[in-house]
Amino acid sequence: MLSPHLIIKTMNNKKNLIEPKTLQGFMELLPDRQILFNRIMGEIKAAYESFGFLPLDTPALEYASVLFAKAGGETEKQIYRFTKGETDMALRFDLTVPLAKYVAKNYHNLAFPFRRYQIGKVYRGERPQKGRFREFYQCDIDIVGDGKLDILCDAEIPGIISTVFRRLGFTQFKIFISNRKILQGLAEHLGIAEKFSQVCVIADKLKKIGEVKVREELEKLEISKTIIDQLIVFLSYATTESKKATEILAFLQGYTIVNETFVAGVSDLISVVNGMKSFGVSEDNFAIDLTIVRGLDYYTGTVFETFLTGHEDIGSVCSGGRYDNLAGYYIDKPLPGVGISIGLTRLFDKLADQITLSNKAHTDVLVVSADSDTVCCLNVAAQLRQNGLSAIAYLEDAKLKNKFKYAERLNIKHMIILGETERANHTVTLKDLQSGQQYQQISIDKATQTIKVLNVD
Amino acid sequence: MLSPHLIIKTMNNKKNLIEPKTLQGFMELLPDRQILFNRIMGEIKAAYESFGFLPLDTPALEYASVLFAKAGGETEKQIYRFTKGETDMALRFDLTVPLAKYVAKNYHNLAFPFRRYQIGKVYRGERPQKGRFREFYQCDIDIVGDGKLDILCDAEIPGIISTVFRRLGFTQFKIFISNRKILQGLAEHLGIAEKFSQVCVIADKLKKIGEVKVREELEKLEISKTIIDQLIVFLSYATTESKKATEILAFLQGYTIVNETFVAGVSDLISVVNGMKSFGVSEDNFAIDLTIVRGLDYYTGTVFETFLTGHEDIGSVCSGGRYDNLAGYYIDKPLPGVGISIGLTRLFDKLADQITLSNKAHTDVLVVSADSDTVCCLNVAAQLRQNGLSAIAYLEDAKLKNKFKYAERLNIKHMIILGETERANHTVTLKDLQSGQQYQQISIDKATQTIKVLNVD
Repeated sequence: MLSPHLIIKTMNNKKNLIEPKTLQGFMELLPDRQILFNRIMGEIKAAYESFGFLPLDTPALEYASVLFAKAGGETEKQIYRFTKGETDMALRFDLTVPLAKYVAKNYHNLAFPFRRYQIGKVYRGERPQKGRFREFYQCDIDIVGDGKLDILCDAEIPGIISTVFRRLGFTQFKIFISNRKILQGLAEHLGIAEKFSQVCVIADKLKKIGEVKVREELEKLEISKTIIDQLIVFLSYATTESKKATEILAFLQGYTIVNETFVAGVSDLISVVNGMKSFGVSEDNFAIDLTIVRGLDYYTGTVFETFLTGHEDIGSVCSGGRYDNLAGYYIDKPLPGVGISIGLTRLFDKLADQITLSNKAHTDVLVVSADSDTVCCLNVAAQLRQNGLSAIAYLEDAKLKNKFKYAERLNIKHMIILGETERANHTVTLKDLQSGQQYQQISIDKATQTIKVLNVD
Repeated sequence: MLSPHLIIKTMNNKKNLIEPKTLQGFMELLPDRQILFNRIMGEIKAAYESFGFLPLDTPALEYASVLFAKAGGETEKQIYRFTKGETDMALRFDLTVPLAKYVAKNYHNLAFPFRRYQIGKVYRGERPQKGRFREFYQCDIDIVGDGKLDILCDAEIPGIISTVFRRLGFTQFKIFISNRKILQGLAEHLGIAEKFSQVCVIADKLKKIGEVKVREELEKLEISKTIIDQLIVFLSYATTESKKATEILAFLQGYTIVNETFVAGVSDLISVVNGMKSFGVSEDNFAIDLTIVRGLDYYTGTVFETFLTGHEDIGSVCSGGRYDNLAGYYIDKPLPGVGISIGLTRLFDKLADQITLSNKAHTDVLVVSADSDTVCCLNVAAQLRQNGLSAIAYLEDAKLKNKFKYAERLNIKHMIILGETERANHTVTLKDLQSGQQYQQISIDKATQTIKVLNVD
């Protein structure tokens, strides 16, 4: 293996400096922000793992033929695609296509339902604009069945969403749920099945553009006024947020139309709502909204969107749904599934300051010498680590004032100071940098205990 | 944001399937291996954080002009480089160049010494061969000073290496240390300073090809026999592994040649060895070896290589050293540092089965129903999670036998079985799948306690 350091070379030529710039749309954080970012990612990971999802880490690069199975190899504008040697490859643009490839490839070695999470970077060369990233983290979970997957799996998803956002300190959020079969069944019943995709796109806008404009758009599809009336009544009823789920379900059950798809959709939605309740998702945190449609072709049943109360403007922070067939391009097996995705980079960019996590310092202690004999710091720091603390030994020859400044810059809350007396007696002096309190000439074990107690407070 | 699922489409056409293949040289693991991989990465991360290193996560893509500052933009064969729009960019080939860019870019916002770790994927399009990867994880730490950096920082590095490998269950390993100034000083003294780089390359081979061949190669450089004799005596003395560090240091101190570089190198090496001892690195785990040279141009002082006893054939598992100037291409400030890198993907590929970590299951409990009423599993699983366990609710309509098989496939050690009686009494039946022992009709809290106790055993 090439030495990782071989490429750079020490250089004394001080002219012709190259600007150390980062690509546009690529997030790069200062350490204190990175610590927060990693903690948020850690909470999401812990939430996913508590539900027994298995970790996956597929390559960031894939064969273009695999990534563009649907498009038949056609290049998409947003995609980072290139050839190396004779290989046509691209950076992944989501974690779903790699999952489909993985499940098809390893079909015989997986236990179904296959529950996996993946947290990783994906790449989309979108036009740079505020809040849009070209490299960003997605945090995905999917439950994939072999031939079939119980509808109760869909009911589990809002529980997972709820767990994630509660772990991040949000209690005010709303998960909107629908089932695409309901609107599809209604479209079939109304004789506009062939316009279903377009109706979905318009239905999705009802809350944003209002009834009048939705009417106008539906009229453009040459749908009769009578049918538009029925659609509007239907959609409006179920978007009134103040209505409880039970009320909407009763409305849907009372909506006696003879259509199998509609009936199946209502039945699935009832199962999901009942399952959620049994799971303990608070009624404050979810609502049925039949205008939720998501990706037109992919989802075939339950669909989810999640809005943080007071931050509706940033859009859905966690979306997903049920699909009939994950990997039809790669394998001749029906693999139905349900999944969600959190766009972590964007969430962080918009909401980092709203997220309340423990204020624990990244490093517990800075060990410094009161004089220039710093070698003693190495040993004391090592003992603190053996006691389960994280510690930095400050080894530079600097004024004590600068050592305090360093602790402050790194948000370290405890400092251990070693002078001649401490070295002679094998003791330490501990300073709580928040209160200013000092514990002089104590043992390392006593210092450890004190720091642990102060960390808890 | 594009819906992550938008690209794939359900498809019923069962012909023309695309082979779900992964690029050559790109590691992709089955779940049980991925769990182990992640645990190893977690141990390395925890070790680095215990030393107070700050996390960094720079983009995988950079401007080609930034990555190839040294080469002046010339394309390297191994590099994944391409243009998108008008931007010439490349995937990073190590974590050091991005660190140099980052420190230069954020110089005024960082506290020095800047201690950072980064664990991330890097890309090198090497010819595919066994044990070589094109996408692989590097786990790096560096301590970067502003203008100066105490030599004791070098002494801290073996302590970190030692901590990492002990956490991974290795006690038998050897960290080889040298200081390039010593050999450089000797070369200056012998009047062969201009051949120093070539001498280094040959010196590095002494243990592999032996004295006779090393002599031959040195002769090709037109170095006189007398000087070759002196070089061989010097190098051979210090590669005899049985010699203790103190013995070699005494030899070096007794080697009275008048050369500043040599003297400085010996003095630095003494500081490092003494610092290490004060740090508590066992004498069994390190040795001085003056043939260790590493990357020729980059390192300027202390150098490290680490070999796992019994696995010397896989080469150094952790290497690094001291450099004079990290970011001279980007900023007109001297930034000396010291760092090491672990090639995690290769280490895992070669040694996964030698690594002993806790055998804890990824998921604690599988909650199943004895009959087809599975909705109760959701609620019980939620309560177990509230009690701090990870749990999967099995929601498919399947035979009990298949539910046991699923637990076995996922290495889950505890199963909770819910039947009519349990549902009526709000109790559960817990089965320890390893011993076969069953705890019937107990409360969820009792089941939680029992599982936690069994997990510890």
